[in-house]
Amino acid sequence: MVKIILSGCLGKMGRVISNSIANFPSLSIVAGIDRNDDTSVGYPVYSDIKKCSNIEADVVLDFSRPETLSSLLQYCKEKTLPIVLCTTGYSEKELYEIEKASKEIPVFRSANMSIGINLINNILKDISAMLYENYDIEIIEKHHNQKVDSPSGTALLLANTIKNAIPSETEFKKGRDGICKRDHKEIGIHAIRGGSIVGEHEVIFAGQGELIELKHSALSREVFAVGALKACEFMYQKEKGMYSMDNIIKK
Amino acid sequence: MVKIILSGCLGKMGRVISNSIANFPSLSIVAGIDRNDDTSVGYPVYSDIKKCSNIEADVVLDFSRPETLSSLLQYCKEKTLPIVLCTTGYSEKELYEIEKASKEIPVFRSANMSIGINLINNILKDISAMLYENYDIEIIEKHHNQKVDSPSGTALLLANTIKNAIPSETEFKKGRDGICKRDHKEIGIHAIRGGSIVGEHEVIFAGQGELIELKHSALSREVFAVGALKACEFMYQKEKGMYSMDNIIKK
Amino acid sequence: MVKIILSGCLGKMGRVISNSIANFPSLSIVAGIDRNDDTSVGYPVYSDIKKCSNIEADVVLDFSRPETLSSLLQYCKEKTLPIVLCTTGYSEKELYEIEKASKEIPVFRSANMSIGINLINNILKDISAMLYENYDIEIIEKHHNQKVDSPSGTALLLANTIKNAIPSETEFKKGRDGICKRDHKEIGIHAIRGGSIVGEHEVIFAGQGELIELKHSALSREVFAVGALKACEFMYQKEKGMYSMDNIIKK
Amino acid sequence: MVKIILSGCLGKMGRVISNSIANFPSLSIVAGIDRNDDTSVGYPVYSDIKKCSNIEADVVLDFSRPETLSSLLQYCKEKTLPIVLCTTGYSEKELYEIEKASKEIPVFRSANMSIGINLINNILKDISAMLYENYDIEIIEKHHNQKVDSPSGTALLLANTIKNAIPSETEFKKGRDGICKRDHKEIGIHAIRGGSIVGEHEVIFAGQGELIELKHSALSREVFAVGALKACEFMYQKEKGMYSMDNIIKK
Repeated sequence: MVKIILSGCLGKMGRVISNSIANFPSLSIVAGIDRNDDTSVGYPVYSDIKKCSNIEADVVLDFSRPETLSSLLQYCKEKTLPIVLCTTGYSEKELYEIEKASKEIPVFRSANMSIGINLINNILKDISAMLYENYDIEIIEKHHNQKVDSPSGTALLLANTIKNAIPSETEFKKGRDGICKRDHKEIGIHAIRGGSIVGEHEVIFAGQGELIELKHSALSREVFAVGALKACEFMYQKEKGMYSMDNIIKK
Repeated sequence: MVKIILSGCLGKMGRVISNSIANFPSLSIVAGIDRNDDTSVGYPVYSDIKKCSNIEADVVLDFSRPETLSSLLQYCKEKTLPIVLCTTGYSEKELYEIEKASKEIPVFRSANMSIGINLINNILKDISAMLYENYDIEIIEKHHNQKVDSPSGTALLLANTIKNAIPSETEFKKGRDGICKRDHKEIGIHAIRGGSIVGEHEVIFAGQGELIELKHSALSREVFAVGALKACEFMYQKEKGMYSMDNIIKK
Repeated sequence: MVKIILSGCLGKMGRVISNSIANFPSLSIVAGIDRNDDTSVGYPVYSDIKKCSNIEADVVLDFSRPETLSSLLQYCKEKTLPIVLCTTGYSEKELYEIEKASKEIPVFRSANMSIGINLINNILKDISAMLYENYDIEIIEKHHNQKVDSPSGTALLLANTIKNAIPSETEFKKGRDGICKRDHKEIGIHAIRGGSIVGEHEVIFAGQGELIELKHSALSREVFAVGALKACEFMYQKEKGMYSMDNIIKK
Repeated sequence: MVKIILSGCLGKMGRVISNSIANFPSLSIVAGIDRNDDTSVGYPVYSDIKKCSNIEADVVLDFSRPETLSSLLQYCKEKTLPIVLCTTGYSEKELYEIEKASKEIPVFRSANMSIGINLINNILKDISAMLYENYDIEIIEKHHNQKVDSPSGTALLLANTIKNAIPSETEFKKGRDGICKRDHKEIGIHAIRGGSIVGEHEVIFAGQGELIELKHSALSREVFAVGALKACEFMYQKEKGMYSMDNIIKK
């Protein structure tokens, strides 16, 4: 049984993690960390990870805020524990701190915690160069009407993967309006917004007489919980170093 | 048997019509008009409709250029024949000439000759007002990489149908880029371009917890031929007046 | 403010209703009925609607089991209250009891509580007869891997709507295997099962050179709660009689 | 310039090849073989490849019938020419003859000539084993209403690729009807038939909270011509041996 300390346990994703863990018989949460307090979650909740010195744990899983980073890394170094970082919005300085910590302990971090998105990203690395000459590439992403940024970070992640795989010049084209024939170097990126769509990403390779489409749909936030818990399983007793979803997919 | 004079018979669509007519046992082409010459099409081809004075016909079907309009209308008035106009790009003056002719003869004209697009357009007239308050509306259209205008004329036709059906203010949003939360009054219109896609149009109503999608795909130019030939069948022995695809769909 | 008594308030759908009502400022829950007990839901919960004799209410909304029907109808008749029945699995005898009650009080009942599905069902009534001759009709539905019945009740509802709208004979074809060319009278029905898909239904009209597709996706159970709460709004102070989602869509 | 002898040049696919070759400036057709006769195709047409002894050619491309196999192989052996075989329906004996010929000359043969289908087939080899445990797999294919076999040969090709990549037992489930919960070992295969759909194949991996979809759409027969002509380019001056679309994709 892999024993997890869950940082940010009372936030939106923390609660999804607490619900999803029932599907992972090899995992359990032994303690939670949160600035708020709640006695009904089924494990003890502490306001600071420093208070967990007597807890026997195998992995620290973090879905909180960048401010907690230092204390979490400090704790993992002292105990020589792996850490899975799912918090976003780190500063350059914090990213450097994470990199440095990975010389001492095993650290897991990915731009997107969904296994499906990482899989499609890997496929794009493989096929984009071969297809580029004869196919036009377009990306369509769909999200709910409360999302503030367009295109989504994940759409840009996929677009950059394609761009980096192609030897010739590319240009991101975010929407089209007016008289302008498509230039082959364009990668179209289209942001659809509406209702409560959780998140869809679709890459289209359009050739002479055929279409190849790769599509990912997130149906609920659970998908990110599943990815995070798989990362905890994967990191159990790993060596020090930096790890990402790619290591899980390619194992 | 409805006997057709096909104007523009050697152009791209003229040839598709000549091939598709085999599926319409009640129709036949008795003569073609074209500035070019070809003896292999199975019916006599003339350079000008004036030369058809001895031909016995029931309908004139036109897929040529606006320049032929006057001579076609003149011929139909003399013979009291219905005319099906599938040529695009008429000037204001020519549109007025068409309107005027419909006081004397039956005239058929539609912005899009596909039965499916006209059907979806009619459905949008019915449902947009009811859905608008609780659903966000987005349109996605896909065409080949040689198309010069974005969004497509048909996407704008559908968007305007929705706009006219909704009592409150709307705003067409052609692509999204940057930090900007969706305003409910937006109707997103997205133009995907690639390969040899003939033409797809999709209207999405995105609500709380559900999506309603209406989609039309043209698989080949044959779809416009089928629409035009159905119009010929429909116009046989009609009274004078203006007709459109709506009359066929709602008959 | 429309005051609701929610029967089955602690079941799966009862809890979704309790969460969704925040989006309906004109509605409130004044009491719940459930065989279980819970003091944390924000309104009093009773084991039987008979105990609500002193509650001032405008509508009874039921998401429980057929067994509760008699006592709910009895209560509504005594108080002359409208009832919205979202429970499924009624016997013939119970359906007759419902019909009979509608002579005295306003009763709302629909096979599917989603507005989108009912809308598509209505569109199918309108367009199927016109399209049938020249288009082949196929239905694809997708649900999670725990669903026991195939095809879904909603797919059969849509298929029967099409069947009833078409003058000539039709035949439901549930999957294809082997050497057998499609007969035009077939309506294909395909049940895809996998993962945690909430529910998708798609009707395809496939013609010469074109496809027309109508698709509904339920993203979460919330969609059924929205439909039920809209029904409560709609039934407020209605006359006696039978009502369904059609009355809301066509109002 | 790679000079091609096109066997079956007046058949459906032969004519598509003759039209598509304009997009391949490095290729030209120097002679055609066909049991029929036509003087308008722009190259000489012979009734038998034996009559081509004086033609200077680089590749033989075959889209005819199995009966022509022996004479084509004989010709290629004599001239030491590569052959691209796109004819289907070979007997066991003929397949053995092909295999044997590849010891002397370069022979190209693939179950499906579309680059996109072969690409997706390769992706499935890579990802199926990794995904199988946590995702349910379903295949949907769509074809025109004249297709006699269900599921399509290509759908079975993809299903067998998945089956062979997965260590545990699988079972093909061709349609669902009745009360039967999905067994995880099932691979659902669904054959949609209607109108003039050229060919679509979609593989769905449905997990907890996410869908991964790989989709291929053939928009016209041109896609098979493009694959065949790419094979001719690829086979120019190759060594003896068996080659397939995989060699092109992975080069």
